[in-house]
Amino acid sequence: MRAPVIDNLQYANWSEKIFRQMREGGVDAVHVTIAYHESFREAVLNLEAWNTWFEQYPNLIFRGLTGKDVQRAQETGRTAIFFGFQNPSPIEDDIGLVEVFHQLGVRFMQLTYNNQSLLATGCYEEDDTGLTRFGKQVVTEMNRVGMVIDMSHSANRSTLEAIDHSTRPIAITHANPAWWHGALRNKSDEVLRALTTSGGMLGFSLYPHHLKDGSSCTLTSFCTMIAEAAERYGTDALGIGSDLCQDQPDSVVSWMRNGRWSKVTDFGEGSADAPGFPDMPGWFRDNRDFGQIAAGLQDVGFTAAEVAAIMGDNWQRFYDASFGPAA
Amino acid sequence: MRAPVIDNLQYANWSEKIFRQMREGGVDAVHVTIAYHESFREAVLNLEAWNTWFEQYPNLIFRGLTGKDVQRAQETGRTAIFFGFQNPSPIEDDIGLVEVFHQLGVRFMQLTYNNQSLLATGCYEEDDTGLTRFGKQVVTEMNRVGMVIDMSHSANRSTLEAIDHSTRPIAITHANPAWWHGALRNKSDEVLRALTTSGGMLGFSLYPHHLKDGSSCTLTSFCTMIAEAAERYGTDALGIGSDLCQDQPDSVVSWMRNGRWSKVTDFGEGSADAPGFPDMPGWFRDNRDFGQIAAGLQDVGFTAAEVAAIMGDNWQRFYDASFGPAA
Repeated sequence: MRAPVIDNLQYANWSEKIFRQMREGGVDAVHVTIAYHESFREAVLNLEAWNTWFEQYPNLIFRGLTGKDVQRAQETGRTAIFFGFQNPSPIEDDIGLVEVFHQLGVRFMQLTYNNQSLLATGCYEEDDTGLTRFGKQVVTEMNRVGMVIDMSHSANRSTLEAIDHSTRPIAITHANPAWWHGALRNKSDEVLRALTTSGGMLGFSLYPHHLKDGSSCTLTSFCTMIAEAAERYGTDALGIGSDLCQDQPDSVVSWMRNGRWSKVTDFGEGSADAPGFPDMPGWFRDNRDFGQIAAGLQDVGFTAAEVAAIMGDNWQRFYDASFGPAA
Repeated sequence: MRAPVIDNLQYANWSEKIFRQMREGGVDAVHVTIAYHESFREAVLNLEAWNTWFEQYPNLIFRGLTGKDVQRAQETGRTAIFFGFQNPSPIEDDIGLVEVFHQLGVRFMQLTYNNQSLLATGCYEEDDTGLTRFGKQVVTEMNRVGMVIDMSHSANRSTLEAIDHSTRPIAITHANPAWWHGALRNKSDEVLRALTTSGGMLGFSLYPHHLKDGSSCTLTSFCTMIAEAAERYGTDALGIGSDLCQDQPDSVVSWMRNGRWSKVTDFGEGSADAPGFPDMPGWFRDNRDFGQIAAGLQDVGFTAAEVAAIMGDNWQRFYDASFGPAA
């Protein structure tokens, strides 16, 4: 069987068209975002929406629960959909909801989305106070049940403390190194070394605000950055987390940034002049273009085995080790 | 492997003591009540409480999801716990919550608990209008995902319509024939024939209000009733659903009867003079006494194979056929 292709972060305006493009692009598994600022009940409504899609498109997609489901996807010519939260709002203040959501299929949870949460500090706050009391308890519980700690939108100290406190490897599902492009959302070398030396995974983002030169970023620039990351951190810790937000209206990026927490518009990585979603680079329009990235990686000197590792084998190994109860 | 022992309804004040008594009594599987009048969120809190018990007592109990888990219980010397609702209040007015609860392990749901619900009519209402529009949709959805329709507390017409509308066999998990003891909660011969000729199961109740002579009912009387039921309906459709409410304070029976729906105390099967839980018959104190029932069945003339069928094999076959998605 060919190596799997896994995209470890998307939040699209889901439709049959997109599910068909996943098949066209040979994407075997996608980690999809279920919630940003949703309450428990609202997050369950989003899971219900996915149940409906699974019922409507059983020949294209199914709910992924374990690493084995990636093979099942390959064997049946479908895409396995793995759930994640970009913010812990769905667990509210109830640690018991970690296991409940794991039972419902949630496999990743960010401890914070840009702002301070009940668990940790986000990358847009001025002061980073690290893991809270509740945050430490939740990390332990996520370790126990097999839910991956994702620190993509978290601040530096909080991320280091999560790596330290977690007994299992964590993930930064969608971000790039700050040494390549100094966005607030990109990660310091210190964080990336702590992440990768502890068995954690970095998913490279294709969201233009995380790219050097934004929407004009070239495939060569992106792949050269990955080559340098491989030199610094080893190839085994690297994968893709495209952050593809396909077909979303701009009201969604406003929801992602503002939720219900602000009465003053926060433009996040955008600005008052450019408040909407940025254009994707021409070489990565959507799920059909993963082959472009694989070709780009080969062009900058990665071996076939290394390309396979970054395009899916590494996430596969991580999924296999992460989604079940602690040994 | 010996035939399994399955009790298809209990609602105890759960404790390590009771879980140990399940092991002492050789009970391989128990269907436990998760909710009477709980909202969605409250029912999830009750599931969280069970998750905590599973974590605390992994050597005694685990969450049962499929019929195979009864064998797993036998092989590992534990009791498989299967979840059910006695009322549809946890799904509120949202059909999508049927699948969500199935994913969380809920395998039985009563369409109503004594009163009119959004789905059907309960056995204490004056007028029985059968399945509602929502009720028919929910029966179809329960059929699809593999959640068993339980009509133990439902009225006659509603029960007949549920049997008719359901494409899969249903259950009356805990009740007795009205021809033996004419309680409102016991079932008409018409209902029991419709139930059993369609592949459905009847679980005999040991709750004193459902017994002839109440707490004074003799084991022989109970088993003779089962023998007559076997003659009328065949042995294959019969099992036990004890309705054991062990160690519960009387406030719980008041909650079961009144929920939050009445400002005037409803005494249900009790009375102002005897508002609490009735005493169990001496020959069935708790989980340790299932052997007494098996012996009683043998004494009234059942063969060893028939005793095994009633004590667990019949529920086992029903579990195997009922808990997965529709074929």
